Amino acid sequence: MPNIIPRIAVDAMGGDYGLTVIVPAAVNCAKKGLPITLVGDEYMIRSELEKLDTGSCAIDIVHASQVVTMEDKPADAMRKKKDSSIQVACRLVKEGHADGIVSAGNSGATVACGMFTIGRIKGVLRPGMAGILPTEKNPMVLLDVGANVDCKPEHLFQFGLMADVLARDVLGYKSPRIGLLTIGEEEGKGNTLVKTTYAMLKNSSLNFVGNIEGRDIFTGDVDIAVCDGFVGNVALKLSEGLAKSLGNLLKGELKRDIVSKLGAMLAMKAFKRFGRLVDKSEYGGAPVLGLNGIVLVCHGKADTLAVERAIEMAARFVKNDAVAHLKEGLAAHSEIIDRKI
Amino acid sequence: MPNIIPRIAVDAMGGDYGLTVIVPAAVNCAKKGLPITLVGDEYMIRSELEKLDTGSCAIDIVHASQVVTMEDKPADAMRKKKDSSIQVACRLVKEGHADGIVSAGNSGATVACGMFTIGRIKGVLRPGMAGILPTEKNPMVLLDVGANVDCKPEHLFQFGLMADVLARDVLGYKSPRIGLLTIGEEEGKGNTLVKTTYAMLKNSSLNFVGNIEGRDIFTGDVDIAVCDGFVGNVALKLSEGLAKSLGNLLKGELKRDIVSKLGAMLAMKAFKRFGRLVDKSEYGGAPVLGLNGIVLVCHGKADTLAVERAIEMAARFVKNDAVAHLKEGLAAHSEIIDRKI
Repeated sequence: MPNIIPRIAVDAMGGDYGLTVIVPAAVNCAKKGLPITLVGDEYMIRSELEKLDTGSCAIDIVHASQVVTMEDKPADAMRKKKDSSIQVACRLVKEGHADGIVSAGNSGATVACGMFTIGRIKGVLRPGMAGILPTEKNPMVLLDVGANVDCKPEHLFQFGLMADVLARDVLGYKSPRIGLLTIGEEEGKGNTLVKTTYAMLKNSSLNFVGNIEGRDIFTGDVDIAVCDGFVGNVALKLSEGLAKSLGNLLKGELKRDIVSKLGAMLAMKAFKRFGRLVDKSEYGGAPVLGLNGIVLVCHGKADTLAVERAIEMAARFVKNDAVAHLKEGLAAHSEIIDRKI
Repeated sequence: MPNIIPRIAVDAMGGDYGLTVIVPAAVNCAKKGLPITLVGDEYMIRSELEKLDTGSCAIDIVHASQVVTMEDKPADAMRKKKDSSIQVACRLVKEGHADGIVSAGNSGATVACGMFTIGRIKGVLRPGMAGILPTEKNPMVLLDVGANVDCKPEHLFQFGLMADVLARDVLGYKSPRIGLLTIGEEEGKGNTLVKTTYAMLKNSSLNFVGNIEGRDIFTGDVDIAVCDGFVGNVALKLSEGLAKSLGNLLKGELKRDIVSKLGAMLAMKAFKRFGRLVDKSEYGGAPVLGLNGIVLVCHGKADTLAVERAIEMAARFVKNDAVAHLKEGLAAHSEIIDRKI
């Protein structure tokens, strides 16, 4: 697989802003030399493409007659919408016509289609969804952020293995530092789930740095935080919400007196730089790890830049042969997984 | 119990800054008319008191010959340090010489002493520790924030009951809105634990507003978020860490060019107001709920203001007869708790 140019199938119909955001993102990537297959209503895609300067870039279109809405339940999306853009895109990967998919649509349905249409890598117990978060230093990986709400230690251990490959192949880290998210730094702190996972991570060849707490996520002192999907999803959404609320409170105070208002205007450049630092579109997608191909789920409110970055991330994942590395990691640690030690 | 003036026992030996922070806080409260019993090394307390203008305020001293360190395990603190300031303070409550205790010492040991020396209210399955967090509007209660890491639905339901009393009696809310912290707003979203808890809360007379997500905590649209102590502790520490990291990043950017630096200086007043809004010393303590008396745990790094606020909170808890209200709430919902419906 290495040395080929990856082809990414992009769900043109997903996301709150639909084709007006997705199609330009696909075009921008194609212009940089990434072959793209846009999947969705062919007429609508063509109308959108006509508005843009596509030049001679490599964009295919594959028609899909149905659309999964945000309200569709994953099981219904699977059974009743077999010709949806998400399902068709997954089939392209399954049949070897594409190497990965990016969708800003219904994330539950996308994960389900990925699992059942593309399929899991042999040995993967539960695919996990990774969040890539900005920190005071470099971005870090939080896994799982919502695909698995009731987990066993072997699931958490595999999340660590898979996040390690993501951090190496996509973020370019040499020896990612893995922390186990719990409620006390010493070994033995946490709930039953975490205590068994600790032993498994400690016995592995991963660069396990021990327990970490909620306060350690954003310092940049670990590259990976492992947790179950319930904790990870609460953590991810709480971070988004808190950053927004702090921003609102600060804005309110800056507007309250005229001198502060003037100060804020002068400092606008700094606020903008700060905004870019914590902008989630930098890593616009949450990769689903453990499948026979990469599936990248974008936020429903993703903008063109976020989708573009997600497509590039998917391509990097394929180019650096992450699926093969996942298989190697699983094989190397099969004894730990089987015996939970 | 109402209409009496509550006497609070204050652990003089706890906290990273020890007596230099705790004793002035106690004196400030005593000057406002709250009777205080300082518990700890009598000689050290007297030396500290001599430095302050205590006037004619009502401060007792009860000597305790031992100190629980931050490294002591809760079980060891209970068994081997029977004359520690924490244990002695708890005995004062048990024997009716005080109505509540405030400690900035080892929180695990304080909770354990509270449970075994003061004892649980009959019917309380697991005492819970509450975090009181600032939001865009009014402060909210997060429960549990770390006392119970492996929970059952009936525990979470009781956390809701107890947080309701705290929000009424201490924060003064008329009909606190209770949300269940999970990973999707619709009923049925979440893990096994949360799904059963949902039904119990829905069938109660509490003002249950349904599921909430991590992003809803800081908007101020709910007054209480119920969760297990693992999730709550991660959420609490993550919030602290993220606020600090965002502050560091913003400060870095504001210093990077001279115009922004000038702007930041002009806006200093707004930054200070913002700092006070999100200052955790406003509610300096985490109340442990479900005991036959109030136990308030302060952050080890609490300053004098934070300890002072914690003492006032403990007094408000007693004055408004929260223990009796907890008993009433438990009795009114005993069928739901017994039958888990």
